[in-house]
Amino acid sequence: MHWAGRGTEPDAVERFYAVIPAGGIGSRLWPLSRADAPKFLHDLTGSGQTLLRETWERLAPISGEDRVMVVCGRAHRAAVEAQLPALEDRNVVLESEGKDSSAAIGLAAAILELREPDVIIGSFAADHVIGDVRRFRRAVVEAIVVADAGYIATIGIVPTEPAIGFGYIEAGEKLDVAGTTSAYAVSRFVEKPDLETARSYVESGRYLWNGGMFIARATTLLDEMAKSKPRLVAGLRELAAAWDTAERGAAVDRIWPGLEKIAIDYSVAEPAAAAGRLATVEGDFQWDDVGDFASIAKLQSGGRGSDLAILGEHARVLADSSSGIVVTDRDRLITLIGVENIVVVDTEDALLVTTSEHAQRVKSVVDALKLSGRTDVL
Amino acid sequence: MHWAGRGTEPDAVERFYAVIPAGGIGSRLWPLSRADAPKFLHDLTGSGQTLLRETWERLAPISGEDRVMVVCGRAHRAAVEAQLPALEDRNVVLESEGKDSSAAIGLAAAILELREPDVIIGSFAADHVIGDVRRFRRAVVEAIVVADAGYIATIGIVPTEPAIGFGYIEAGEKLDVAGTTSAYAVSRFVEKPDLETARSYVESGRYLWNGGMFIARATTLLDEMAKSKPRLVAGLRELAAAWDTAERGAAVDRIWPGLEKIAIDYSVAEPAAAAGRLATVEGDFQWDDVGDFASIAKLQSGGRGSDLAILGEHARVLADSSSGIVVTDRDRLITLIGVENIVVVDTEDALLVTTSEHAQRVKSVVDALKLSGRTDVL
Repeated sequence: MHWAGRGTEPDAVERFYAVIPAGGIGSRLWPLSRADAPKFLHDLTGSGQTLLRETWERLAPISGEDRVMVVCGRAHRAAVEAQLPALEDRNVVLESEGKDSSAAIGLAAAILELREPDVIIGSFAADHVIGDVRRFRRAVVEAIVVADAGYIATIGIVPTEPAIGFGYIEAGEKLDVAGTTSAYAVSRFVEKPDLETARSYVESGRYLWNGGMFIARATTLLDEMAKSKPRLVAGLRELAAAWDTAERGAAVDRIWPGLEKIAIDYSVAEPAAAAGRLATVEGDFQWDDVGDFASIAKLQSGGRGSDLAILGEHARVLADSSSGIVVTDRDRLITLIGVENIVVVDTEDALLVTTSEHAQRVKSVVDALKLSGRTDVL
Repeated sequence: MHWAGRGTEPDAVERFYAVIPAGGIGSRLWPLSRADAPKFLHDLTGSGQTLLRETWERLAPISGEDRVMVVCGRAHRAAVEAQLPALEDRNVVLESEGKDSSAAIGLAAAILELREPDVIIGSFAADHVIGDVRRFRRAVVEAIVVADAGYIATIGIVPTEPAIGFGYIEAGEKLDVAGTTSAYAVSRFVEKPDLETARSYVESGRYLWNGGMFIARATTLLDEMAKSKPRLVAGLRELAAAWDTAERGAAVDRIWPGLEKIAIDYSVAEPAAAAGRLATVEGDFQWDDVGDFASIAKLQSGGRGSDLAILGEHARVLADSSSGIVVTDRDRLITLIGVENIVVVDTEDALLVTTSEHAQRVKSVVDALKLSGRTDVL
């Protein structure tokens, strides 16, 4: 089923292929997110669906169900297929070990460029939350048009506050691409800023949040990556050549372990921005990478930042003068008395108690647990 | 084994019998304290022993192990006997239902006055914490001497702060009883005061904390109680007359259910104070009724009121910039990040998160659970 736009749908949408890299554990969401139950396999919005399933439901109507590819770890194959029963076997790419986003997205691009030389791929994280599906779809279609014109396109989210948890994209000149209305050249990518800098970004009106979405012709993406990481791309293309053959297993064993681990922001986005080949399309919709429990609490409370959010199918919570968030996969009674902006995460073998203010620090605890060898709870 | 005093031990100590009423659940310590695991069966000090066992170990050296009587609910008999293997069968008094302290202590007094007409009993709660056993023993011996002179004696704790969680005793004239140095008539008993009143009490030097300890000849105690509650005492003496006979069971069934439920403070202490028959002996030792989790945290931290106290044999706690108390009977990992004066109580079927400041409010939650019929977790 394809998207029916306002009037004529651009032809390029017919060549669109959605790629969902489903990697990463979501350390800041420990002890809910675990190695065996990463963030994308959780319902973090109370919608009744996992983040992965919601990602699929946003993308499949644009690309068609037969044109969504998922890149995930071997350990998560069964869980992913259970979530996405319509996902086709040829669209499942399994990683024997995590190699970061350049390898994950690059391998999908390399496999797809061999199958369809003029394919346009769009990569979308499996574990983000997006509020307005119509506006999202409109932005993706515009990004496809920009990609078809030869750019590497991103979708930059119009910021609603001076967030310090996200990276930013500085928009430059408006692009002269037929059929687009909000496409700009990207002047630069910037890392998470401090609050003062974030405020100046938002006030300037020239900065957008980096939503981590990349849309490009597969070949353009790989050629751009090859400029900074030629060995990585050579490996990916060699592996892709074997992918749809009996040699796949041997090629994976030979090539994958040696591939460089690097985020696509560094291998593609930053150099392409510097070279003027990166574009951004404004995405005017609610977006969140659900980076920590404070984000979940905010999403749950509709941005009010007050009251108590409760996530958990069997949750039994008794709260007296308390606010924040309770996340539980248990059914035991949780009682809160007089605790404000609290974060309580209750799982079978681990309990976390913190506050919204300190929610970012969960990652350092996970790192400490790793260092001390207490991996039984990770 | 009897106490060896400084030089001569008063003869009256030979007639002393310790009574430990082990009733009450300790609602403010929910979900640790439960109907089937009340406060006195917990180790709340980290000593490795239950409060009941510690109470026994303070009293048995004064009275002798064969002269300690425990009054408890039928449901707790096995647990009490497991804690106190030297407790003699004839010294176990089982309540078919809780009837408050007048009936519990009064029945013990009535049984003992029949067995030994000149017995002096001392009643001590099973679930309080006392810091200095030598000073406690000295105060008890002095109270026995005062009791032998015909008074109903209490031990008033010298206050160390203007606590609002305890009742107070106003001391009057010094008593002229041979062999005593810190015995006073009691002017009045007062309920828990507000902070300003508590401050004025402590500054005056005339007020002591009511530690809930009563020492008296059994007959004196019952006769005093009979002045305000004649039917109650008649019932208790009738039941006591049948106690050491084959008629005990029938007498319990006939008499116990109809007995009035009233605290001994109201049936004995207040009227006796008004009539000038109540005395108090100064107790200059650390004492706490461990009324809520804030008390436990304070006891654990040695009164510093800072840092993190952890109670639980199998506790695994990882804390980052946090203070307060964690109580757990589980072995799962509890992680705290950036939470101050927090109270976390982790049990199999219930979790409590509150702060020291709000620890008193636990009781109202328990009341709400009762009202809503959620007795499965009480």
